[in-house]
Amino acid sequence: MSDLDPGERTSLMNVVFAVEKVVRSLFAPDKMNLASLGNMTPHLHWHVIPRWHDDRHFPGPIWGSPQRDTRPPRPVVSVDTMRGALRKQLDPDEHQG
Amino acid sequence: MSDLDPGERTSLMNVVFAVEKVVRSLFAPDKMNLASLGNMTPHLHWHVIPRWHDDRHFPGPIWGSPQRDTRPPRPVVSVDTMRGALRKQLDPDEHQG
Repeated sequence: MSDLDPGERTSLMNVVFAVEKVVRSLFAPDKMNLASLGNMTPHLHWHVIPRWHDDRHFPGPIWGSPQRDTRPPRPVVSVDTMRGALRKQLDPDEHQG
Repeated sequence: MSDLDPGERTSLMNVVFAVEKVVRSLFAPDKMNLASLGNMTPHLHWHVIPRWHDDRHFPGPIWGSPQRDTRPPRPVVSVDTMRGALRKQLDPDEHQG
């Protein structure tokens, strides 16, 4: 991230936080995790991960050992709904009125 | 992060990126990982993690299974050096001239 100039950093993080906001509102998780790892190939990407108290790895990171073997029901959200909510979040003016 | 207002978010991320920059310059890692997890207790914190091609978990996340059992030498940096570099990064004007 520190290879980017401040303006580029802010733009990227605004998208990350918009995704976080949309995922929170549509999936109502107990917690959000954010992570920029990407070790294999030099590049930048962000994980925006909803977490639930009863998910397989909670409270550990999703990359650790599973804590339980359950698959509780989660909100089902269509790609269209997700796309619309994200568009609205990223460009609220265009969707007002 | 999306519970914070945009100004608070920027302030916090500026500190995260300053730490990243300082860690990169002092430890010369091959890659940086950033992560906000903190699942056990509702709170916000950031991991700023230097990674090396020969570290125990590379290329996987540090929370997964170790890939090898080595302890290669790393730069030794005193707390004072770290503190000074971070202060300079966070407030460059104060340390010019």
